[in-house]
Amino acid sequence: MGILEVTPVQACHAQLAQRFQAVRKMTDALSERLTPEDMMVQSCPEASPVKWHLAHTTWFFETFLLRPYLPGYQSYHPDFHWLFNSYYKSLGNHPEKQLRASFSRPSLEQVRAYRQHVEHGIGQLLATDASTEICDRIELGMHHEQQHQELIATDIKHAFWSNPLQPACEQSPLPAGAGTTETRHWLDYAGGLVEIGHRGDGFAFDNEFSRHQVFLGPFRLASHPVTCAEYRDFIQDKGYQRPELWLSDGWDTVQALDWRAPLYWHRNPSGRWDVFTLRGLIPLDGLLDTPVCHLSYYEADACARWAGCRLPSEFEWELAANAVPVSGNLLESGALHPLAPQRGDSDPCQAAQLFGDVWEWTRSPYVAYPGYRPAPGALGEYNGKFMCNQFVLRGGSAVTPASHIRASYRNFFAPGTRWQFSGIRLAADGGAA
Amino acid sequence: MGILEVTPVQACHAQLAQRFQAVRKMTDALSERLTPEDMMVQSCPEASPVKWHLAHTTWFFETFLLRPYLPGYQSYHPDFHWLFNSYYKSLGNHPEKQLRASFSRPSLEQVRAYRQHVEHGIGQLLATDASTEICDRIELGMHHEQQHQELIATDIKHAFWSNPLQPACEQSPLPAGAGTTETRHWLDYAGGLVEIGHRGDGFAFDNEFSRHQVFLGPFRLASHPVTCAEYRDFIQDKGYQRPELWLSDGWDTVQALDWRAPLYWHRNPSGRWDVFTLRGLIPLDGLLDTPVCHLSYYEADACARWAGCRLPSEFEWELAANAVPVSGNLLESGALHPLAPQRGDSDPCQAAQLFGDVWEWTRSPYVAYPGYRPAPGALGEYNGKFMCNQFVLRGGSAVTPASHIRASYRNFFAPGTRWQFSGIRLAADGGAA
Amino acid sequence: MGILEVTPVQACHAQLAQRFQAVRKMTDALSERLTPEDMMVQSCPEASPVKWHLAHTTWFFETFLLRPYLPGYQSYHPDFHWLFNSYYKSLGNHPEKQLRASFSRPSLEQVRAYRQHVEHGIGQLLATDASTEICDRIELGMHHEQQHQELIATDIKHAFWSNPLQPACEQSPLPAGAGTTETRHWLDYAGGLVEIGHRGDGFAFDNEFSRHQVFLGPFRLASHPVTCAEYRDFIQDKGYQRPELWLSDGWDTVQALDWRAPLYWHRNPSGRWDVFTLRGLIPLDGLLDTPVCHLSYYEADACARWAGCRLPSEFEWELAANAVPVSGNLLESGALHPLAPQRGDSDPCQAAQLFGDVWEWTRSPYVAYPGYRPAPGALGEYNGKFMCNQFVLRGGSAVTPASHIRASYRNFFAPGTRWQFSGIRLAADGGAA
Amino acid sequence: MGILEVTPVQACHAQLAQRFQAVRKMTDALSERLTPEDMMVQSCPEASPVKWHLAHTTWFFETFLLRPYLPGYQSYHPDFHWLFNSYYKSLGNHPEKQLRASFSRPSLEQVRAYRQHVEHGIGQLLATDASTEICDRIELGMHHEQQHQELIATDIKHAFWSNPLQPACEQSPLPAGAGTTETRHWLDYAGGLVEIGHRGDGFAFDNEFSRHQVFLGPFRLASHPVTCAEYRDFIQDKGYQRPELWLSDGWDTVQALDWRAPLYWHRNPSGRWDVFTLRGLIPLDGLLDTPVCHLSYYEADACARWAGCRLPSEFEWELAANAVPVSGNLLESGALHPLAPQRGDSDPCQAAQLFGDVWEWTRSPYVAYPGYRPAPGALGEYNGKFMCNQFVLRGGSAVTPASHIRASYRNFFAPGTRWQFSGIRLAADGGAA
Repeated sequence: MGILEVTPVQACHAQLAQRFQAVRKMTDALSERLTPEDMMVQSCPEASPVKWHLAHTTWFFETFLLRPYLPGYQSYHPDFHWLFNSYYKSLGNHPEKQLRASFSRPSLEQVRAYRQHVEHGIGQLLATDASTEICDRIELGMHHEQQHQELIATDIKHAFWSNPLQPACEQSPLPAGAGTTETRHWLDYAGGLVEIGHRGDGFAFDNEFSRHQVFLGPFRLASHPVTCAEYRDFIQDKGYQRPELWLSDGWDTVQALDWRAPLYWHRNPSGRWDVFTLRGLIPLDGLLDTPVCHLSYYEADACARWAGCRLPSEFEWELAANAVPVSGNLLESGALHPLAPQRGDSDPCQAAQLFGDVWEWTRSPYVAYPGYRPAPGALGEYNGKFMCNQFVLRGGSAVTPASHIRASYRNFFAPGTRWQFSGIRLAADGGAA
Repeated sequence: MGILEVTPVQACHAQLAQRFQAVRKMTDALSERLTPEDMMVQSCPEASPVKWHLAHTTWFFETFLLRPYLPGYQSYHPDFHWLFNSYYKSLGNHPEKQLRASFSRPSLEQVRAYRQHVEHGIGQLLATDASTEICDRIELGMHHEQQHQELIATDIKHAFWSNPLQPACEQSPLPAGAGTTETRHWLDYAGGLVEIGHRGDGFAFDNEFSRHQVFLGPFRLASHPVTCAEYRDFIQDKGYQRPELWLSDGWDTVQALDWRAPLYWHRNPSGRWDVFTLRGLIPLDGLLDTPVCHLSYYEADACARWAGCRLPSEFEWELAANAVPVSGNLLESGALHPLAPQRGDSDPCQAAQLFGDVWEWTRSPYVAYPGYRPAPGALGEYNGKFMCNQFVLRGGSAVTPASHIRASYRNFFAPGTRWQFSGIRLAADGGAA
Repeated sequence: MGILEVTPVQACHAQLAQRFQAVRKMTDALSERLTPEDMMVQSCPEASPVKWHLAHTTWFFETFLLRPYLPGYQSYHPDFHWLFNSYYKSLGNHPEKQLRASFSRPSLEQVRAYRQHVEHGIGQLLATDASTEICDRIELGMHHEQQHQELIATDIKHAFWSNPLQPACEQSPLPAGAGTTETRHWLDYAGGLVEIGHRGDGFAFDNEFSRHQVFLGPFRLASHPVTCAEYRDFIQDKGYQRPELWLSDGWDTVQALDWRAPLYWHRNPSGRWDVFTLRGLIPLDGLLDTPVCHLSYYEADACARWAGCRLPSEFEWELAANAVPVSGNLLESGALHPLAPQRGDSDPCQAAQLFGDVWEWTRSPYVAYPGYRPAPGALGEYNGKFMCNQFVLRGGSAVTPASHIRASYRNFFAPGTRWQFSGIRLAADGGAA
Repeated sequence: MGILEVTPVQACHAQLAQRFQAVRKMTDALSERLTPEDMMVQSCPEASPVKWHLAHTTWFFETFLLRPYLPGYQSYHPDFHWLFNSYYKSLGNHPEKQLRASFSRPSLEQVRAYRQHVEHGIGQLLATDASTEICDRIELGMHHEQQHQELIATDIKHAFWSNPLQPACEQSPLPAGAGTTETRHWLDYAGGLVEIGHRGDGFAFDNEFSRHQVFLGPFRLASHPVTCAEYRDFIQDKGYQRPELWLSDGWDTVQALDWRAPLYWHRNPSGRWDVFTLRGLIPLDGLLDTPVCHLSYYEADACARWAGCRLPSEFEWELAANAVPVSGNLLESGALHPLAPQRGDSDPCQAAQLFGDVWEWTRSPYVAYPGYRPAPGALGEYNGKFMCNQFVLRGGSAVTPASHIRASYRNFFAPGTRWQFSGIRLAADGGAA
């Protein structure tokens, strides 16, 4: 035996510590190009300042790990335990969300020091004989932070778009996709009594449990998401002017907010569309083969109806996704925007681009699976209390970390939400033929 | 054979005509005690003036039957075809809902004449060899009118409650229930792969189709709805002050609207609760055994969580309801309010009070059944476009006409809605035993 | 001496009683053509249902006269003393204004009986040896009721306009004016140290006191109000699109409410303007010589600026009005709408149409005169507490009773208000020449 | 003759250049203790981020001086001419005010460089034979910047108060006043026909012209502003609960916003009041002798009524102020908060603390003086378009630069505004006695 004898548990801890550091570094990397001023902007009620994300993800580890489990832990700042609480009512009062834009103090520098302070504490905790519960909570904290990585990207995109100068966040050119060598086609699924939900190996959120049986009729899924070119056709066919295509609430929203195109599409003086991206404005003409994104559920639903189709249920989507590997244009690609399908990357018998590029709205309202039990205490507020008035989205987007997504992953947003990278996968009932 | 030989089709028509007249008379009866001034009030965004209900239900028959099918039909008034359109966008522009309170003209007298004019037309139509399509539409129109009968009761209740004098609509005393001779108990259901949706015999709305298979785990249902006494316990146990009991949107609503009790409960100066009913204010003490009503989904959900239970899914409810006859405290009882369970009216092995008394909130968001197809044209707007942001309620209430309700019937309202007679049936997961 | 010896005081009382009855009858006459349903409509936050006006004006006499002064007075209904309070906080809680639309009970019939009951009481009171204070309060109550007569006309106009059928209230044709035989010209006033406010003979509101000195520079007033033809020029000259013509708050209001013309002007499909009046829609072409009305202060101010002029101060207006008799197109003319100037009715050396036709916006904010003292008690709330955020209007309109208006009369509304018959008199600084 | 021959004009220019630099340095000094993050916060609709103030004051010089008058001027950034426009519609579109919080770009560093760039340009312009018009505009720009210096102080105060950590901006202790060696007393003024408005020597805003005659009755002014101790008495006497003390709009505001004390007063758990200042929270007990501030017009008016007094008119105030020198606790004192009266600083026959400490609400709505003419072009938008819905305040506050204030200076805010250092000077009608 060598000098370093590592027991399985220690190996697990070492690997966890390594992954923990990798997640934290990714967050830092995402905010690297931003100034302290950029990280102050909160440009819509859905968004938070980036500095707040840096602090809140840290607060999560402090609150759910260091305070309860690290003996003798000294908090970095006595007020941070309530200041950076997002919505956990069991932990006491917290500032209203819109106040986050007033947090010029603590400074970014202090928040970075807070991050290091807590990272050091987690290191200490893992150096001890950490229990399974502790490891599970660290794992949860990492996934929590990955969710906020996606939010950092979407929130800063909105912030930069709100700035009348519309600056770019990323200077490198958008990677080209390989073009659409193949046309979109239908894939048939037989349905039947299927198992839905997480199998139990590896991390999953509580809302992916319990795994349970669902009966599905035969159905079809489009091989690829709807593209910008196709969505432009919907617009040109007066999709935004025809009430018969829309849910009633959707039509009311279109009228009230005067929607005529996806979020971030601008018609320039010459009558052509430009699209705001994390690289600044790009002519739509250069994005025609890419999946359309920043759509509300209402728009996704209306476009599907216009196409004579429907949106898939989350169960149909999961069934299809179980058959393909978790890979695609995710955060690590650096594209930070959906891309056209890659040549040869798709088995013609399997749905392509299920993971990455755009979150795909499903027709499934976000509700508890049978037997769902939120965790006791504050952690039980993580998911369960949001189970109304939202729809499930699946598959991750171009700003979702690869290690964060899986076939059973359930994202959810209110149907009028557009600031996420959300798009459309068409579905239809399967024929008897 | 007698003098009057009636062919089966004619018999059907005659029977339909008779039922048509009965439905129309019920509407008239409901508004009998109201003055023309009462019928002008529109006291909340959900409600309409009663006069408008009288006209709109008539408009429905005119628009979908007399105009397309009765040769030479002369409309009663050239403007009514757009004036009394509620929300059918395919038929062109219609007045915004809140304007209905300005319809002092046409007068009630004119609206009554309009009703007779259209009733006469339907009579003519049925006297001809009316097609199945015509009969189906008349049937639909009758059920449409029955929905508005319930709305007349709920809207005038809100109107009278809004009036600072809080007048009573009905003078007779509330019929007594028989008291709770039996305590509420649990009923067990095995679940499995079950058929859900309408079987196809008799009338049903399009949203009850297609009948399809759903897989259910074992579950339990409470034998009776939650009573006012039990809900008072929830209030006394600080139910409205404990965020951990509430959905996030529910908690925000409780704060924003300062809810502390069901709609229509008032704490009087002595500290006791009074309840506003269609008979005016009644002390809660006299209603303790009656099902609590006028709750939002949020309150129903929070009370169920407080009780350590959950709300049933609409499928669980339907499975249970398939086993019992459609009867209960419905509109025809004249109670106009939920009643305590009647002695001996319930088989202890079956759920009681499933039909009538209170609409029971289910945990199921209102979405399309597999294979759902809205009708083509304007009638397709009847149900389909509302399939988001709402929850399903089942079973009818004390103001639902008996011939209008059935086990597969799906009512739906936004989760913050309280002006309907909506209450709670508790459910729980079934045991492994 | 004859049988009936009448002392001066008794004569005064008799005359007061007669005038009291005349005022009350005028109110009844105004509502004569309205149905109970019409009298329920409250179509904007500024307006009240006509039935409420009938009751509230009665409540005023009951509250400030019968209750305190008539021994043994039995109230008609125990709840009316709080139900029909408008805004007198000293008298206790009262219903929120928008609830008035829910007052289907008491019925119109009951309100009419209430009116008679109180009229009977006032008769009794006057039959006694009524004190000066009582007579003064009756006088105040009569003027209060006359204010509500004007409101009845303006509120029912808005109500009928809100009704999508846009019915007419009055069937007779609009009396023709005599045409504009003379062009509008300027009248010069020297200004100087002048006396402003009521002289003290006859009735006046407390806000017309104390009479005090004001120093005015030389100024000019237009001989006639701005006409519809002239205002149409303002519109055609893009008056509503040019921010430099508007006060900042005015411009924001124009944008927010998308104003493009006075209230009640509609552009019909042929591109011409129609104007909604109490006689229904009338083509603008038939009204070109009439004073434009239903303008906000913002519009009046912008139109004056566009014309290179300004609005008069209330002191300038009063100075001019002191020189002319109180007569014009007032409520008694029956026109119910501003009319073109009458041939020969104006001395070319005096301003015409100062009284009647349209209330004339002045540039004077509504504030207390020096030494202003509101009455003690609830009557002190009549005027004083509204002295901010409003502008003074002068001269009465086509729906103001003739006996209600005088040169020192100060009306006041918020600058965004348009539902009154409010128009423009141009003014300018006087030359040194 | 010496080497440096300076003509009178050059001397004037040199002096102007020096003052220009002094004003600019004061702005920099005010923002010295703030971080780039602090300068991003916009915590209420009235406020702007400090960085925006730094840029907008610079934009003013660039727009109204360098662009039109400096030959060959190269703008610092092509977009700044619309980006930092506040409300000058004549200059084209500008960003909506609330977007200013999204201006993370340009960075503070860039804004500082922009400031230097423009300062350099103004230096060049003054080195030439600058015309009177140019000098007048520079003077206007300096006063414009001084207004924004006050706004920097008030806006950052609100920003730090909004931050849940409530940090202090200034660390030094609050200078002590000398205590109230003398009690407040009344000063009598005879009134009469007086001259109001600027005399024409030195700088004044257009709204201080034309100087004109106003007739005033005899009146009295309090020798000192209302103190925190006195205002606390008003609160303890249930001032915020008694509608009879309030204007109607004021009472509605108190209810709607649940006001119970001045802005920045907090009742701490022990029941005592703390006051948030630019030095953080200070116990009210240490501020009892200081003038109360951060009051709306409504509160000032109600407190005056409670005291049996009234607010002065702006004319009364100006008459009194004409008799005293312009000095007091102004920005240069460094107190950044109102102070108790200084021993011996007040002639007992003159009003004290008229200048500095707190802006004094007058009862005068902000309207044009007779003969007021706004400048042509965009500069005409500076003052004139705000002349409605606001009240005049006089005398400057503890954060007003000394060289910016004068007896004829008219500040103005909407009556519900509280974030300025606004307080109360009592007045009363003068007796005949």
